[in-house]
Amino acid sequence: MIKTDILIIGAGPTGLFAVFEAGLLKLKCHLIDALPQPGGQCSEIYPKKPIYDIPAYPEILAGDLTHKLMEQCKQFEPGFTLGERAETIDKQEDGTFIVTTNKGTKHHAPVVAIAGGLGSFEPRKPIIDNISDYEDKGVEYIIKEPEFYRDKKVVIAGGGDSALDWSIYLSDIASEVTLIHRRNEFRGHLDSVEKVQELKNAGKINLITPAEVIGVEGTNKIEAITIKQDAKTFKKECDHFVPLFGLSPKLGPIADWGLEIEKNAIKVDNSLDYQTNIPGIFAIGDVNTYPGKLKLILCGFHEATLMCQSAYQIINPGKRYVLKYTTVSGVDGFDGTRKEAPKAVVKAIQ
Amino acid sequence: MIKTDILIIGAGPTGLFAVFEAGLLKLKCHLIDALPQPGGQCSEIYPKKPIYDIPAYPEILAGDLTHKLMEQCKQFEPGFTLGERAETIDKQEDGTFIVTTNKGTKHHAPVVAIAGGLGSFEPRKPIIDNISDYEDKGVEYIIKEPEFYRDKKVVIAGGGDSALDWSIYLSDIASEVTLIHRRNEFRGHLDSVEKVQELKNAGKINLITPAEVIGVEGTNKIEAITIKQDAKTFKKECDHFVPLFGLSPKLGPIADWGLEIEKNAIKVDNSLDYQTNIPGIFAIGDVNTYPGKLKLILCGFHEATLMCQSAYQIINPGKRYVLKYTTVSGVDGFDGTRKEAPKAVVKAIQ
Repeated sequence: MIKTDILIIGAGPTGLFAVFEAGLLKLKCHLIDALPQPGGQCSEIYPKKPIYDIPAYPEILAGDLTHKLMEQCKQFEPGFTLGERAETIDKQEDGTFIVTTNKGTKHHAPVVAIAGGLGSFEPRKPIIDNISDYEDKGVEYIIKEPEFYRDKKVVIAGGGDSALDWSIYLSDIASEVTLIHRRNEFRGHLDSVEKVQELKNAGKINLITPAEVIGVEGTNKIEAITIKQDAKTFKKECDHFVPLFGLSPKLGPIADWGLEIEKNAIKVDNSLDYQTNIPGIFAIGDVNTYPGKLKLILCGFHEATLMCQSAYQIINPGKRYVLKYTTVSGVDGFDGTRKEAPKAVVKAIQ
Repeated sequence: MIKTDILIIGAGPTGLFAVFEAGLLKLKCHLIDALPQPGGQCSEIYPKKPIYDIPAYPEILAGDLTHKLMEQCKQFEPGFTLGERAETIDKQEDGTFIVTTNKGTKHHAPVVAIAGGLGSFEPRKPIIDNISDYEDKGVEYIIKEPEFYRDKKVVIAGGGDSALDWSIYLSDIASEVTLIHRRNEFRGHLDSVEKVQELKNAGKINLITPAEVIGVEGTNKIEAITIKQDAKTFKKECDHFVPLFGLSPKLGPIADWGLEIEKNAIKVDNSLDYQTNIPGIFAIGDVNTYPGKLKLILCGFHEATLMCQSAYQIINPGKRYVLKYTTVSGVDGFDGTRKEAPKAVVKAIQ
C-alpha cells in the first residue's frame, strides 16, 4: 500500500504543479498516470509543439514545459505509479481514501486530487476480431520501453508522427522494422518523413503501403500478422505488432466514482477550492467544470494552488496556515535542499 | 483622450498578462501605473530577487519575469501612461468609463480592470516641514530618468539598495554625488556596498554618515540642504535632493470609487469573472479579495484570463467566443506578426 498526503490522479502540468504547491505546505504527493511517463498530453501527444499562453513564456515547447515542471517539483520527491489507470476508489471509515489501479496497485491518502485532463488516454485500436487476445502478448499500443524490442521483428502500423518517429528510433534496436500504412502519404514533421524515406532506401525500414493489417495469429503469443495490399492478402512473421493510431481521452472509471459529472467533466466548487461533491476529493485542471471554466494550463496552476490550501486544512485540522512568499522565505525541499534569495548584508562604509 | 478596449490600472505582472490574454480575444489594452516603468513591485522593489513559485520557472528573477511578460504581450501593442496615478473614474451614460490621472490624462474605455497590486507605491518622505514646496523643483523621491541628473550636484539620502545603486549609477553622470545616511552601516547586496566603498575611496562619491538632512531651501527651486551630523549642523549646495527611504503601497484614490472594500482590497465575484460590485469594473491580482484568496502572481494570471472573457462579452454583446488553443491556432499580433506551430506535412514515401 502506497501512502501519501495528496494522491494526484494525472501527472500532466496541473498535477505536477500541485506537487510543488503541496510541497510548500509540507504535504507529500503521489501521482498515478495511465501513460508511461509524466507530462500528460504535453509529453505524449505534442511534446515538440509550441505553447504561447503559458504566463511569462512567449513560447515554450510542450515537452520543455513538462521538464520545467518536473524540475520545479523534484525537491518535493513525488512518487509515481505510471502506466496504470486509477480504477476504483473506496472511502474508509476515517474519511481517507484507497485508490486501486487496473493493475491492482493500492494507494492510501486523506485527500485525492483528480488532475486527469481530458481523461486517461486510450489507444485507438485496429478493428481485428481477436486482437485483444494478443494484448501484452506481442501487441502493444504504446511503446513504453524501446529496449523491450531489441533484436525483435517489429511491425508498426500508422501514418502519423508516432508511427514515423518510433520506426526511426527502433530501426537501430529491433532486428527488423516494418512500417505499414493504408496510404502512401504520411502526415508528420518533414524531418521525420524524410528520415523514414532515407532509412527505407538504406534497407533499414521495410515499408508496406498502401496496406492494412487484417489479422493476427500465434499460439501463446503473436507469431504473424495478415496483411491486405490491393487485392492480395499475405502473412508476415513478427514478434511484435504495434498499431499507433493515436490516443483518445476517456474519462473512464472515474465516471463511476459518484462524482457529479457534466459534459464529461467533474463539477467543482469554483467559489472556494475546486472540491467535488465528495468532500476530500478535488478536481483540478481540464478535468473539472464550473461557470466560466476555461480549459487552459494556466488555470490548472491556479486551481492546484487553491486546492492545496484546503488539503492542508483536511490533513492538519484546526492548524492555521500563514502564506509565505518564496522570495522572502525560500523553499525547503524534502530532499534536504534549500533555495533562497541572497541575503542583504549590513555593512559599514568608512 | 486615450481610447482603448480594456483600461488596466496597474502594470505589474497581472496587468501585463491581461494584455496578452485580451490580445488573443482581439481586445486592445492601455495601462496606467504610478511607477515610471512597467513591472510593478517586481521591477521597482525587488528586480534582482528570485521567485520560486512561478509555474514552470524553478527560479526566475523578478526583473526577468517582467521582461518575459513584456515580450509576451508586446505583439498586442499595449499603450502606457506611466508615472501617473489613476485618480478619478466617471461612468458615462452609455456605461463606459473615463479615468483621469493625477496629471489630468484622460482615458476612455468600456471595461476597467484594476490590477493595482497592493496599491500605488507612495514614497516614504523625510520629515522636513517645507519639503513639499520643493517637490518636482529639485526634490524627487523616485529616479525616473538618470540623464536628468547629468552634470548636476545630487544629494541622495537613504541606507538601502536603492540609495546604494543610484549613488553608483549617478557617480558617472552627475557632477557630484553625495550620499547621506543616518548610520554608518548600509543594508544591501554585498556587491553594492563594496562598490560604494570603492567609489568613496576614489573620491567619486561623498559620504556623510551618520547624518540627516533636516532642511531644504532655495528661491524657485532647491539650492541647498541643511545637514545635521552629531551636534553640528551645516549647509550644502545642491541641484537635487533625492531621499530614497522606500515605497509603501497605498490603495489611494481607488478606495473612493464606490467599490466594495474589505481589508484594503476590492471584493470581487470569484465564482465567475472577478468583477466588482460595479458592472464593467474588474479587480484582478493582489488588489482583490474573495473567500480563499491567495496573493500570488500565478493566481493573478488566472484571474486576468477569466476577466478577459467577460470583457469580451461586454465589448461584443451577444457575440459568442469559442476558445482557441494557441498551439493549434497560433497567435496573431496587432503589429502584423504571426506565431504558429510548424505545420505537419503530408508526403508520400516511395
